[in-house]
Amino acid sequence: MTAPTPDAERPATRPGRPRAADGRDTRGDVLAAAAALFSSVGYTATSTYAIAERAGVKQASIYHHFRGKDVLLRTLLLDTVRPSLDLADELLDAPGDPAARLWALCDADARWLADGPVNIGGLMQLPEVEGEAFAEFREERARLRGRYDALVAAVLGRPESVRPAEATLVFGLVETVITARRSGGDTAAQDVAPLVADAALRVLGLDAAALRRARAAAVELVP
Amino acid sequence: MTAPTPDAERPATRPGRPRAADGRDTRGDVLAAAAALFSSVGYTATSTYAIAERAGVKQASIYHHFRGKDVLLRTLLLDTVRPSLDLADELLDAPGDPAARLWALCDADARWLADGPVNIGGLMQLPEVEGEAFAEFREERARLRGRYDALVAAVLGRPESVRPAEATLVFGLVETVITARRSGGDTAAQDVAPLVADAALRVLGLDAAALRRARAAAVELVP
Repeated sequence: MTAPTPDAERPATRPGRPRAADGRDTRGDVLAAAAALFSSVGYTATSTYAIAERAGVKQASIYHHFRGKDVLLRTLLLDTVRPSLDLADELLDAPGDPAARLWALCDADARWLADGPVNIGGLMQLPEVEGEAFAEFREERARLRGRYDALVAAVLGRPESVRPAEATLVFGLVETVITARRSGGDTAAQDVAPLVADAALRVLGLDAAALRRARAAAVELVP
Repeated sequence: MTAPTPDAERPATRPGRPRAADGRDTRGDVLAAAAALFSSVGYTATSTYAIAERAGVKQASIYHHFRGKDVLLRTLLLDTVRPSLDLADELLDAPGDPAARLWALCDADARWLADGPVNIGGLMQLPEVEGEAFAEFREERARLRGRYDALVAAVLGRPESVRPAEATLVFGLVETVITARRSGGDTAAQDVAPLVADAALRVLGLDAAALRRARAAAVELVP
């Protein structure tokens, strides 16, 4: 390990990462470093020292932006679930074929999980996420799961009051991306997301013609 | 925390766990305690002291059976993948409808993951499993994935030389059980496993009639 470089000595840009000439995105750097370490080394095994070193900032800079390591993971987790939840809310209220709306949600969700340099979805699978500090994330995620339940029930033409067992499979299909990335997934984000969305509708028993219709309509829903 | 009770003072049986009157299954107790702690607290966050305490044995007893914490996790991981791999080998060589054989594999795999008091499949998702100490497990798991690839290719009538993208989804569907258990899954092992196996064939485009045939034939394959 090498000692972290003091801010003043660091170049304003690093390869592959655009940076403003007049300042650094320290908060973003710290979050990116934490995500990379939490998902590769683990949460407990990662020290704020290691995060500071990887981000190229002083340890004190981390505490300037985040109260502690748990706030870092909480921020990352909530950043993962919130865009999905916003889109799910929008799609749940949208008119039209529920199959198309579910396709659009699965596709977008899988795309987000497949995107970016770090397997961010893997953070949700850390055992430490079961702890008290991450209760808010777990609630948000349960809320997202509820949206999936409602859309799956609508596709199956069942009452919303009963959680369909099939929704577990649909939710799980989207998370397939996480495992695929972990085991050196051979498929790019753009390729795997529509496959996941197709699979979700197939699991619900839609035939090829209904699937084609849903897919075509879904493209109109999410630009 | 309470100090671990010395072996001599412990009763020969504990509630819910059968135990021979003349001795204890220390190795099994240690493995069970390690599995419970690794999957709930995490690998790095779990000390051998905590494992000893939970198992009700002295720390030295752990080292009598296992060289260290990494050997404990390696043993648990290999115990998880090996029965699946054995069954997959058997089914790959079996005659008859590949869809039936794939159904049988998915059903059995999902059942194993859903079974038992600890969410043992969650151990595979620990970030620490990417480390050098667990390379053998990762190889065994890649081998299992290869069997899934071959069966999926056979179902789709494609050459075995190309890994089908759909196999990622089938493999992922089986692991749905892990996430479902983690988020307080509402479905028992016996219920979810055939749903997973049905979903796997639906993802591959089988219609209801072909699915019924495969399911009926699968029951003959695995007693």
